[in-house]
Amino acid sequence: MSITSLITAVDLQEMVNHTVFPIWFLIGAALVFFMQCGFAMVETGFTRAKNAGNIIMKNLMDFCIGTVVFILIGFGFLLGEDVSGIIGRPGFDIFTDYQNFDWSGFVFNLVFCATAATIVSGAMAERTKFISYCIYSAVISAIIYPIEAHWIWGGGWLAQWGFHDFAGSCAIHMVGGISALIGAKILGPRIGKFKKDASGHITKVKAIPGHSLTLGALGCFILWFGWYGFNGAAATTGPQLASIFVTTTIAPAVATFVCMIFTWLKYGKPDVSMCLNASLAGLVGITAGCDVMDAAGALAVGMVSGVLVVFGVWLLDYVLHIDDPVGAVAVHMLNGIWGTLAVGLFATKSAPESGLQGLFYGGGVELLGKQIIGIAAVGIWTAIAITITYLVINATIGLRASAEEEIHGLDAAEHGLTSAYADFMPAPAAGASMASGINTVDTQTAVVKEAAVPVVGDVEAAERAKISKVSILCKQNRFEELKAALNEIDVMGITVTQVLGCGVQKGNTAKYYRGVEMDMILLPKIKVEVVVSNVPVKKVIETAVKALYTGHIGDGKIFVYDVENAVKVRTGEQGVEALQGSPED
Amino acid sequence: MSITSLITAVDLQEMVNHTVFPIWFLIGAALVFFMQCGFAMVETGFTRAKNAGNIIMKNLMDFCIGTVVFILIGFGFLLGEDVSGIIGRPGFDIFTDYQNFDWSGFVFNLVFCATAATIVSGAMAERTKFISYCIYSAVISAIIYPIEAHWIWGGGWLAQWGFHDFAGSCAIHMVGGISALIGAKILGPRIGKFKKDASGHITKVKAIPGHSLTLGALGCFILWFGWYGFNGAAATTGPQLASIFVTTTIAPAVATFVCMIFTWLKYGKPDVSMCLNASLAGLVGITAGCDVMDAAGALAVGMVSGVLVVFGVWLLDYVLHIDDPVGAVAVHMLNGIWGTLAVGLFATKSAPESGLQGLFYGGGVELLGKQIIGIAAVGIWTAIAITITYLVINATIGLRASAEEEIHGLDAAEHGLTSAYADFMPAPAAGASMASGINTVDTQTAVVKEAAVPVVGDVEAAERAKISKVSILCKQNRFEELKAALNEIDVMGITVTQVLGCGVQKGNTAKYYRGVEMDMILLPKIKVEVVVSNVPVKKVIETAVKALYTGHIGDGKIFVYDVENAVKVRTGEQGVEALQGSPED
Amino acid sequence: MSITSLITAVDLQEMVNHTVFPIWFLIGAALVFFMQCGFAMVETGFTRAKNAGNIIMKNLMDFCIGTVVFILIGFGFLLGEDVSGIIGRPGFDIFTDYQNFDWSGFVFNLVFCATAATIVSGAMAERTKFISYCIYSAVISAIIYPIEAHWIWGGGWLAQWGFHDFAGSCAIHMVGGISALIGAKILGPRIGKFKKDASGHITKVKAIPGHSLTLGALGCFILWFGWYGFNGAAATTGPQLASIFVTTTIAPAVATFVCMIFTWLKYGKPDVSMCLNASLAGLVGITAGCDVMDAAGALAVGMVSGVLVVFGVWLLDYVLHIDDPVGAVAVHMLNGIWGTLAVGLFATKSAPESGLQGLFYGGGVELLGKQIIGIAAVGIWTAIAITITYLVINATIGLRASAEEEIHGLDAAEHGLTSAYADFMPAPAAGASMASGINTVDTQTAVVKEAAVPVVGDVEAAERAKISKVSILCKQNRFEELKAALNEIDVMGITVTQVLGCGVQKGNTAKYYRGVEMDMILLPKIKVEVVVSNVPVKKVIETAVKALYTGHIGDGKIFVYDVENAVKVRTGEQGVEALQGSPED
Repeated sequence: MSITSLITAVDLQEMVNHTVFPIWFLIGAALVFFMQCGFAMVETGFTRAKNAGNIIMKNLMDFCIGTVVFILIGFGFLLGEDVSGIIGRPGFDIFTDYQNFDWSGFVFNLVFCATAATIVSGAMAERTKFISYCIYSAVISAIIYPIEAHWIWGGGWLAQWGFHDFAGSCAIHMVGGISALIGAKILGPRIGKFKKDASGHITKVKAIPGHSLTLGALGCFILWFGWYGFNGAAATTGPQLASIFVTTTIAPAVATFVCMIFTWLKYGKPDVSMCLNASLAGLVGITAGCDVMDAAGALAVGMVSGVLVVFGVWLLDYVLHIDDPVGAVAVHMLNGIWGTLAVGLFATKSAPESGLQGLFYGGGVELLGKQIIGIAAVGIWTAIAITITYLVINATIGLRASAEEEIHGLDAAEHGLTSAYADFMPAPAAGASMASGINTVDTQTAVVKEAAVPVVGDVEAAERAKISKVSILCKQNRFEELKAALNEIDVMGITVTQVLGCGVQKGNTAKYYRGVEMDMILLPKIKVEVVVSNVPVKKVIETAVKALYTGHIGDGKIFVYDVENAVKVRTGEQGVEALQGSPED
Repeated sequence: MSITSLITAVDLQEMVNHTVFPIWFLIGAALVFFMQCGFAMVETGFTRAKNAGNIIMKNLMDFCIGTVVFILIGFGFLLGEDVSGIIGRPGFDIFTDYQNFDWSGFVFNLVFCATAATIVSGAMAERTKFISYCIYSAVISAIIYPIEAHWIWGGGWLAQWGFHDFAGSCAIHMVGGISALIGAKILGPRIGKFKKDASGHITKVKAIPGHSLTLGALGCFILWFGWYGFNGAAATTGPQLASIFVTTTIAPAVATFVCMIFTWLKYGKPDVSMCLNASLAGLVGITAGCDVMDAAGALAVGMVSGVLVVFGVWLLDYVLHIDDPVGAVAVHMLNGIWGTLAVGLFATKSAPESGLQGLFYGGGVELLGKQIIGIAAVGIWTAIAITITYLVINATIGLRASAEEEIHGLDAAEHGLTSAYADFMPAPAAGASMASGINTVDTQTAVVKEAAVPVVGDVEAAERAKISKVSILCKQNRFEELKAALNEIDVMGITVTQVLGCGVQKGNTAKYYRGVEMDMILLPKIKVEVVVSNVPVKKVIETAVKALYTGHIGDGKIFVYDVENAVKVRTGEQGVEALQGSPED
Repeated sequence: MSITSLITAVDLQEMVNHTVFPIWFLIGAALVFFMQCGFAMVETGFTRAKNAGNIIMKNLMDFCIGTVVFILIGFGFLLGEDVSGIIGRPGFDIFTDYQNFDWSGFVFNLVFCATAATIVSGAMAERTKFISYCIYSAVISAIIYPIEAHWIWGGGWLAQWGFHDFAGSCAIHMVGGISALIGAKILGPRIGKFKKDASGHITKVKAIPGHSLTLGALGCFILWFGWYGFNGAAATTGPQLASIFVTTTIAPAVATFVCMIFTWLKYGKPDVSMCLNASLAGLVGITAGCDVMDAAGALAVGMVSGVLVVFGVWLLDYVLHIDDPVGAVAVHMLNGIWGTLAVGLFATKSAPESGLQGLFYGGGVELLGKQIIGIAAVGIWTAIAITITYLVINATIGLRASAEEEIHGLDAAEHGLTSAYADFMPAPAAGASMASGINTVDTQTAVVKEAAVPVVGDVEAAERAKISKVSILCKQNRFEELKAALNEIDVMGITVTQVLGCGVQKGNTAKYYRGVEMDMILLPKIKVEVVVSNVPVKKVIETAVKALYTGHIGDGKIFVYDVENAVKVRTGEQGVEALQGSPED
């Protein structure tokens, strides 16, 4: 390039393109990376609070473990020198010949690989052992994904043969979705998802709502945003990129719209979380053919996706009885297949740079046939390889967390995390999520229940030594003081409730919210209840007064109630005896 | 381009620009799409939890319904062949001539259109029927926005005439803001927003704080980020783009800073949510003139915006008594007008590619005059068209949800969603948000209240059959078991409270948070209270023991209290009779 | 450019690059701006709910105050004409010569500057006065950062001398981290973070978990995404940018992976929030040398970062006893230093455009020496300047909020914000966060406690006038009505609890969640408790019935209990007397 020469317009455009598109390619890769954030938010939002930290961690580790194994093996299998169309030759050019390494290709393929891996975590959420998930994640990123992606994008047999999957409806989403389906099937449903009768037949499907729809929605918006990079990054001309943006916009929008109408008609109300899923379904659907379809094709893809996702969720819940908490199978597997097929139906040469023509655009069935065979081949490979992976994990370290861990939540069990929301006390569950635990626990405790110790003596005639409840209302910031003081006088356990105390707030500094004065007359207080037998009532009151006294208005109040009887469940002891023993009872 | 030719430097730069800027244009469009996420988060965060799913859904549907109607009509009205400067000729080139379609123009104008539509949802939040919102959204995206945008950007009369609105202070924000104002006015305030005296005069404005300031802040940051695309996407040279970035940074930063100082002085403390609004106000203000102003102009725009937004919120609350939950009118309408006017004041040729000069830069009043006329024309068109739209909707299917739906929350009413935060039990409202319901309900129940059945018999002398309260403390994961068992013995209703149980945790596995051991001695428990009359106390205790017994420490405790009297509100029955009848009471 | 001329390929590539990279530079700047959002989310998520609004505000103001002072002074100090290698000459070109102003340079350096400032807010969170933080923020953005950044990037002595810090491990992160360390030290720990024995020795470090791990994770993902802009924006060729993406991906992924393994081994479980920190640590570590390292170097940097961050958190907690709520010192200071050093170890000419060679790549110790001197010089400057800043603030307006403000939360104290989560009632704290307050308050009330008024009279023998508790269960939406009615009959304070009421829901409209019917039989209710002495029980019941009656099922129930005694903490009064006086008690 250092000598003077005459340049043709074609050379020139090529040179410009060769400078511009690689940068866009990297921007696209960054957008695809950002989709990891989207997946993490969707999957966390659509599951329960007690597993939020665990799901975050799985999503984070998908990418990080994926990077490690992709460096070591995956990248070679994917983009290494082709061996008989089946696999790339692994190598360590990244370390041995860095200056000639395909930096962009590495980053781009890595972020795609991580996407395939992360799809699974949602379907297997809330009950998979963390270490097992890590191993699964390493296997899909090191072996399963790179090999099939080599077939499609790495110069392998499907690529040579004319199978078309521009951005991965098949290579990423179907593969992730199949892995999700098989994983969820092998794992079994979350405790409480399906209600069985005595003979083991499922009589009822229970909804287990996610803990934050706003987080789920945030994730969906981030995914859609990132998808412009996902679908567009590999474009090589301006018109092609622009057309990809059109199809990538129309398909999800139409899918969401159709889903709204469909759920409205079917369930009586438009379902929010299903519509969010439908956006993703439309995006998955258009991914394979985003470069070869026109607006009409995108419209058709979206319409089908919007219904297919509802069908898929229903199919898993009511027919297959497979528990997929976030709808990953419906979104990624079914729409991944649909999108790959759709290329064979709707591909058209009117899309910029497109040389393909599908069945409905006069291209005959040849392309459709190739697409079907590609789906079958990749599907079979994935199904076999992932099944082996899961079964080996299951047989060795086990795939599923224990029932107790699951009920308590994986955050505590796997990460020693009391709660991902330390300042909030998650409700045990308004609504159906409270159902968790019922079935399994039923079975587990069937024997135990019969063994329950009888309540000792006649309840009516229980020894009637005086038992009292002391109820202490205090400020939140004095609670710790009070607790410590009560511990010192050997109170056997206390019960703490958050309440709101109400009184007229005279003389308080005015508070404004957006310029409007607030009349805040409900103040958060703590109610501490202690049940004690005859003697120490006085002691409890004195101790509490000492701990709470500051001399300011609002120091608190104490009430004493008579308790007619007390029973300790574990021992069946009644009356005063029920109040003895370890404070943990 | 395929023949060899000599190329001039000008040709060359043009070719480079023609390759580069279309890609940036699309990246910008993706950023503008991401603003949908920002709007969804801002509007959800600044409103109450009980409507979170509904607001998410409206924001999602803005874009998806918008896409459908924009394909069918809107895009043609906007960018179709100009008819007398008033309107574009609708067409279906997107389907009939896809290969020559303006793909980029379509995507770009669609995401802008959706922005105009979505502004309104915040102002009309928490009380608008979902279906009515969908219809409104279709009308603004299909007709109202495309027509005025045709005037400004589609080659219409304002464009021909020299009106300048680079990125939409007028075309998008003022139009959205006017629609928001009129919508909020026609709808009326949320129940509880304004307190009226007997004669119907408003005596008090109540603050109804949003349910998540962090979500609102997230939305604002996303919007600011996306705004670099919003303002910058249409730039055609590097210097112009760079200068747009400067003005788009200075105006919101200064607006936020000024708002902090202003609220600090006015209300005694710097108001967080108002400052977040001020960032958006500054962004709206600079949008029209981001390409023709210099740093000084941006500074001036920002300073005014930072105060204007506070004034606007005050004006609606205290003068107009219009309830705009998120400040959409103050942010978008007032600052949209201000920004459009500001072009006439601060435009300067020192900004790259700028050919305009405003009043303060020696350009005279001509430009300012055009800006004023443009504002008036677009404002009148919008006001008339949107008023007709709302009135027609109101007269047919109704615009506003019922009082009961509103109090219960639109998530439940419109989408069958118990809560967007299933694992958390939203407080009925610490602070002022608890006020909801008071006024309207007052009126509604005025008659009913008089009809309240008298409490039967003398309270003091109520039949004193023995009534007892059985209070059961148990682990969260045993609750469902207990509930089922209690149902079987025909207990008439139970009351469930989440409490924290406190005891010394001996022998527990250590838990670490960031390497620091946690002394977690408060464990979440469930308190179940059952009130029963004489006989079944024993039965309740036995049933509970059976349901809860596992033989492990922590199985729970049961306490029995005497109840002196019970009253059923609906019937006025007292004593044992109050405990009979349907369990729903 | 307007005349015809022959152009060489070199000219041409240069022209293309001159068009393309400035746009990428601006996109990168937008990504760096978005990192403000990431910081805000990380810092808010990792701290307590009661300070969420305050932290949001500080992050917002970092940028906005930063912009104001950067315009006035900072930009000149940084990029103004070099004066003896030490400082740039301040100027007002931005106002006086806008058309020749370096627009891109301004925006880019501003967003970098704001990053340095924002790092500190996390370490000083939950206890710093807002106004003091604003002042600190102005000083670092106006003076401290611009001067050292001038040395490194503005043509100053370090730049001339060959010190290498491509994107700011030293210039941004170390500087922010040192400021964080010194600030946290001067401020002292949050109340409750360290437990001291009588002699003032720290006997225990307490974990204070953040209020939203999902928000923290969101922030980390956003930061990682934005970091591709942070590290990549200044690239000038395609291969260089691609290689930067490789190193910027490998280092954080490896750091996170290593951290997972390390915490798993050390603490028994993989720590989620520490792994999120590790991602940031790896990003900070690779920032200085992202352009001159290869994959092996990035791997090494990441491995060290993943352990270093855990070490740093431990060091501050257990050795230095400095309270850094979000780990800012471990992430930014330690890894900033490490990353800057690592350039001297791992720089290699095999990275595109790299001319540097580190110790391990045969480059000798020269570069390493320069890096060490650079670190020392910048470190000393920062330490001195920031210490003076803090001390001056501390001596004048004070740096730390009062203990009462801190315990109550800065949202209320500084911004008049009842809660950033108005619809949720934050738990006073399951787990360790409840510990807040204990130490300091202990000391403060030591005297007060002794002065606590004795409980008047013998508790056992307290005057036994009849006291009753009236417990009212009602629907949430009737609560306000009830409260108003009770206020009118002069009830002295009420206690409000949220409970779930349970009954069989017959005939209710079916509700679906994702197509699955929900059996929602627990409905949120309000329990209002009023304690009254003899007379008004009847009046309370009648008032409540009137307020609650609608004639529909579910109107509520009222129970009356006997109260044996009542004590008012502030006065020590017992029995009926405890119920007299101001309702605020």
